[in-house]
Amino acid sequence: MGFSAADAVIPACAVIGIAFAAWQWFLVAKVKVSAYASTGNGGHGQPVFRQEDEEDEDNRIGRESDDEEDGGDGPAAVARCAEIQNAISVGANSFLFTQYKYLAAFTVIFAVVIFLFLGSVHRFSMASQPCQYTKGKMCKPALANAAFTTAAFLLGAVTSVVSGYLGMRIATFANARTTLEARRGIGAAFATAFRSGAVMGFLLSSLGLLVLYIAIKIFGLYYRDDWEGLYESITGYGLGGSSMALFGRVGGGIYTKAADVGADLVGKVERNIPEDDPRNPAVIADNVGDNVGDIAGMGSDLFGSYAESTCAALFVASISSFGADHDFAAVCYPLLISSAGLVVCLATTLFATDFFKVKTVDAVAPALKLQLLISTVLMTVAALVVTFAALPARFTMFDFGEEKQVRNWHLFLCVAIGLWAGLAIGFTTEYFTSNAYSPVRDVADSCRTGAATNVIFGLALGYKSVIVPVLAIAVSIYVSFTLASIYGIAIAALGMLSTVATGLAIDAYGPISDNAGGIAEMAGMSRRIRQRTDALDAAGNTTAAIGKGFAIGSAALVSLALFGAFVSRAGVTVINVLSPKVFAGMLVGGMLPYWFSAMTMKSVGSAALKMVEEVRRQFSTIPGLMEGRATPDYASCVRISTDASLREMMPPGALVLLAPLVTGTFFGVHTLAGLLAGALVSGVQVAISASNSGGAWDNAKKYIEAGASEHAKSLGPKGSEAHKAAVIGDTIGDPLKDTSGPSLNILIKLMAVESLVFAPFFAAHGGLIFN
Amino acid sequence: MGFSAADAVIPACAVIGIAFAAWQWFLVAKVKVSAYASTGNGGHGQPVFRQEDEEDEDNRIGRESDDEEDGGDGPAAVARCAEIQNAISVGANSFLFTQYKYLAAFTVIFAVVIFLFLGSVHRFSMASQPCQYTKGKMCKPALANAAFTTAAFLLGAVTSVVSGYLGMRIATFANARTTLEARRGIGAAFATAFRSGAVMGFLLSSLGLLVLYIAIKIFGLYYRDDWEGLYESITGYGLGGSSMALFGRVGGGIYTKAADVGADLVGKVERNIPEDDPRNPAVIADNVGDNVGDIAGMGSDLFGSYAESTCAALFVASISSFGADHDFAAVCYPLLISSAGLVVCLATTLFATDFFKVKTVDAVAPALKLQLLISTVLMTVAALVVTFAALPARFTMFDFGEEKQVRNWHLFLCVAIGLWAGLAIGFTTEYFTSNAYSPVRDVADSCRTGAATNVIFGLALGYKSVIVPVLAIAVSIYVSFTLASIYGIAIAALGMLSTVATGLAIDAYGPISDNAGGIAEMAGMSRRIRQRTDALDAAGNTTAAIGKGFAIGSAALVSLALFGAFVSRAGVTVINVLSPKVFAGMLVGGMLPYWFSAMTMKSVGSAALKMVEEVRRQFSTIPGLMEGRATPDYASCVRISTDASLREMMPPGALVLLAPLVTGTFFGVHTLAGLLAGALVSGVQVAISASNSGGAWDNAKKYIEAGASEHAKSLGPKGSEAHKAAVIGDTIGDPLKDTSGPSLNILIKLMAVESLVFAPFFAAHGGLIFN
Repeated sequence: MGFSAADAVIPACAVIGIAFAAWQWFLVAKVKVSAYASTGNGGHGQPVFRQEDEEDEDNRIGRESDDEEDGGDGPAAVARCAEIQNAISVGANSFLFTQYKYLAAFTVIFAVVIFLFLGSVHRFSMASQPCQYTKGKMCKPALANAAFTTAAFLLGAVTSVVSGYLGMRIATFANARTTLEARRGIGAAFATAFRSGAVMGFLLSSLGLLVLYIAIKIFGLYYRDDWEGLYESITGYGLGGSSMALFGRVGGGIYTKAADVGADLVGKVERNIPEDDPRNPAVIADNVGDNVGDIAGMGSDLFGSYAESTCAALFVASISSFGADHDFAAVCYPLLISSAGLVVCLATTLFATDFFKVKTVDAVAPALKLQLLISTVLMTVAALVVTFAALPARFTMFDFGEEKQVRNWHLFLCVAIGLWAGLAIGFTTEYFTSNAYSPVRDVADSCRTGAATNVIFGLALGYKSVIVPVLAIAVSIYVSFTLASIYGIAIAALGMLSTVATGLAIDAYGPISDNAGGIAEMAGMSRRIRQRTDALDAAGNTTAAIGKGFAIGSAALVSLALFGAFVSRAGVTVINVLSPKVFAGMLVGGMLPYWFSAMTMKSVGSAALKMVEEVRRQFSTIPGLMEGRATPDYASCVRISTDASLREMMPPGALVLLAPLVTGTFFGVHTLAGLLAGALVSGVQVAISASNSGGAWDNAKKYIEAGASEHAKSLGPKGSEAHKAAVIGDTIGDPLKDTSGPSLNILIKLMAVESLVFAPFFAAHGGLIFN
Repeated sequence: MGFSAADAVIPACAVIGIAFAAWQWFLVAKVKVSAYASTGNGGHGQPVFRQEDEEDEDNRIGRESDDEEDGGDGPAAVARCAEIQNAISVGANSFLFTQYKYLAAFTVIFAVVIFLFLGSVHRFSMASQPCQYTKGKMCKPALANAAFTTAAFLLGAVTSVVSGYLGMRIATFANARTTLEARRGIGAAFATAFRSGAVMGFLLSSLGLLVLYIAIKIFGLYYRDDWEGLYESITGYGLGGSSMALFGRVGGGIYTKAADVGADLVGKVERNIPEDDPRNPAVIADNVGDNVGDIAGMGSDLFGSYAESTCAALFVASISSFGADHDFAAVCYPLLISSAGLVVCLATTLFATDFFKVKTVDAVAPALKLQLLISTVLMTVAALVVTFAALPARFTMFDFGEEKQVRNWHLFLCVAIGLWAGLAIGFTTEYFTSNAYSPVRDVADSCRTGAATNVIFGLALGYKSVIVPVLAIAVSIYVSFTLASIYGIAIAALGMLSTVATGLAIDAYGPISDNAGGIAEMAGMSRRIRQRTDALDAAGNTTAAIGKGFAIGSAALVSLALFGAFVSRAGVTVINVLSPKVFAGMLVGGMLPYWFSAMTMKSVGSAALKMVEEVRRQFSTIPGLMEGRATPDYASCVRISTDASLREMMPPGALVLLAPLVTGTFFGVHTLAGLLAGALVSGVQVAISASNSGGAWDNAKKYIEAGASEHAKSLGPKGSEAHKAAVIGDTIGDPLKDTSGPSLNILIKLMAVESLVFAPFFAAHGGLIFN
């Protein structure tokens, strides 16, 4: 495979991925949500569904008794679904656009910072400089690197925002369609939800790949054979992606959980009305939150991981023999692995939607799990092919100032160990968060003695769930680091992320199903439909936890790869734990995830308190609200979530972005390296335990509610003391699993990629105090 | 100050400390608890107080109304106090003796392991070996080091057990006396509780110092001028102390929290009876738990820190110029600092009991805080004197294979920064856990919206409370490490611990006051008395948190000092983060505190569930129990706590003891070093946040109960929804603050000291897999 082959394969695979996403979107769009769909979105922005169908009220009251009548699923219900979907979509759109205004301001300011810091490395000189790694050659001036890094940063930021936005669009497009397809059966509903997830997965990964490839080509026009400068600038792409992801995750996480916690505390606990009941004023905000937090946030997060691990791998490759030999196919190996991943995921998707169809409720969870297994097996084969086709048999890799002899099959092992470690993390997460296994059942059982024991058991479960994932990550690091130094780790990270399209598909499936259930409830669909959407949602809860496991596992590898690249770029060869600078940095770095979590948890708590007051106020001041005769003021709840999210995402964002800048500038590269290592080592544990405790509490509650076994029945039904205790646990888990936990992935990655981008500055001018 | 001066000063100070402890004991003993005290302990082991005084029932009923009559404080009440004290004392004695049987078996087995591992370093050869550091000289055989290390281990284990036991004895001797002195006023009660704490503080620190000094002298008879071997063997003393502390903390922690959580869940939440109500079957177990967990456990823990930091400092000194020059006073500098600390703490204690007397309820907390400040200021002066008297002006310190030039005032700075960092940690802990400040009040306020927000706010508070202590530790490490390498860190740790007698005094004061309040409640004393003991207890809650802050802060420094000593002993000069072995070790090490916490939390949870069932069973099957006409079966609850504690302390103990052995043996010194660094960096954060979340929940509950401000009144009274939410938070915090959190100190220290003791083995035969 020569120069031209890589140039053909990468864009081709990206285009295939985009085309496949478009085809899936087309299939989803065939489901019609509204009789008057052709007239455009009626009642734009106005969730007026309540007033319009008072004639339908009997149905809603009817469904609250136990009859099985189907009258709620007719054209009136379809119209309601359309309107609710529209309300959610408008809310999500409006929030994201408001958020983007803030992000645009931030992006411009940070772009200026990048340009000034990096430009100052050689005092804004326009003259070429001797290359750092390729001895005896001249490279482009630091000023050019500053300009191109800034451009790459902007490109990454825009791609990330577009990825998150598109994910939100498809999710809000698909949720009501899933509800309506549930009338035709569980299989049709599953296919709709899953296909919509796939649209997001494929769009994101194809777009990320394509934009990166095009950027390399365009930047290459200027850089020509200065690959050091070229791939150094490209790292800005990862920084752009990840900094948007940070605000997306944190802002979206605060938005969704303020609404969710607020809605639950008044609705479920005080007023004893079901989740997603349209009488609850916070219900629209809650559903909007699923889309801006879980979908857009997760999309930006995984896009960031993907962009960063590719950038880290490209940078290390460029200063290794691949770069020295100007072997484009070899340098592009990370992109080729991702390209192969797209094709593999495409085939995998067909297993869920076409080759085997889901026909029963029990088949949903296994179908999703099978996706993970199939994609991993197929990708292992594909990686073998790509490795032997693209790479020379032997080459050397940059190894902190030395050269490491590597063979092509070593890199195959790196991809494979990343892939399979990802699978191990996914299955462990499932074991600890699915109510099919004993850990969650034990937590449910502890609700017998109240909320306190539930929380104690849930925390213990989260702590315990860290063991296997961390061992899997440690083994991956040991093997890939030993085989191919820092490049091996970047490749292992890419291996774990090579099936990201499938991972994102099953991950996005969760919130879509959750919304579908919410819409069924709000639209007053029949019990049969709601049982089907509930089954989809229950499987989605576990896949959401698996997705978070993947995200944090890959983040650990990505962050270490970036860390290695940063150290290499800063020209450091040893980071000695036995030095005051490094150890003090490590200790403080280990503290940062706690500081960050303290901020985000407190933000959710405070915003939820405001939401509670507002919901209580509406229930007590709007006459007839509890009886369903009046419409709540959804907009004021949306406003509370929006304001809280935008205000509260600033301090944690500032912490993450400033920590490396301040440390590097004042205390130097060694302390910064310690800080990154400490944050990584400590953050991984906090993130995994927070996500899994939260997931377990959620499913323990669902286990009691579903009452599917004798044991579960003995704890239930809804409203029993044990169930109330379970609801408290679920509420505590909300910010842990959807705000602070998953944001920590981004904390560790973003600090590392920022250090990498600013490495030339730190190496030149850093350490004002300690040096 | 020559050879003979140090030999005079150290034992003299130790004897003064012991004499002072005896004097304080004598003052406490002057309070008579029983009319028939001279006939010995009547009703030995039988908590028969209930049946004896049915005639007194009117008083008990009376006190539940709001009258202020004093009839409950007469001779009958005194007799009841004596009996309750006796029951608690007998229960604690019996538990500790049972525990010691298990520990004796463990100690013998582990002693054999130590001897065999270390003896095998040179294949059990009896021949002298070339010294490792003093080139060209012969040192004693490894077999001798194995034998003496084993002896030191046994000595440390015995001293630790004796320390814990004596602490428990004085605490159970003082609790009822404090209750009775409360009749004379708050000042007298405070003096009794504080003096009793001082007995423990002084006994422990003097005993630790004296035994260590004598051991050095006796071992020296064999080793003569082979100081490398001498101080290498002495490290066994630290290992012995810390391994007993581990089981003491974990076993005691599970015991006390199983009883506490179980008693609260049924008594407070379900039956709505007050804490420490004698009708609650778990109440005696709960009070016993305070003594075996908080007193004996904490005593062993701080003794361990103290022994370990001294051993680390002595070992490093012995391989530095002090050792090469055979300057005994200089080598003994750590012991001299501790000796000075005893004298300083003695003077400090008089400030609380004699110079200024506590006269009002509001003066209790400031008097305790003042103790910290006074001891820190005085110790700073004392350290200055000792430093210039004992040390040559310049000397060199071993610095990972190199020599570091150090001046005597550098070491003074190390002591001082440790001392003041300890004070900063103490005051920060107070700020975050005392209900006089806004953090705890915010947590209390969040109870308005239920238990879930309470838990979210409490967790966020715990995370946030990590920031300042970690920065203080990081600065101490940076400064002391930079000034005097690993020796500087050991000295900074000793500086923090030099005021340990005062620290232990105010720490032991807490559980003693807690018990005093419990006895007042159980004996049916008047409301006036209970208000006084409650005031003592509230101040004690905060000092307990401060004590935990100290314990973890010093543990971080101690553990790093031990880590440095281990690396030195293993002959390693660089621990490079950028190596697969080290990084994988760090990641797994960072996971261990989570694994450990998962075990201990789950143990408390399961044991509490059993306790709940037993308490519920007794309430439903013993007729007249709720009405106070029948006596509960206290013994069966004591049995549940005892069994759970002994069974459940094994797995976490095994984890901590096996992790370094397995890692060192199979993966080698570098991975083990990574493991230790990771455990330290991650464990410090988990420990601080767990302790402070728990302390804050406890005091948020007390804040609502006390109702001392308008804000607090708006949340209360007892039994309100907000109060119920606060009780749930308090219950969740119990295992965090009293079981898993404080045990983590020992995890990080014990793994480090074990690595140090086994370092010769790992260096000789370690790394079976990775090397």
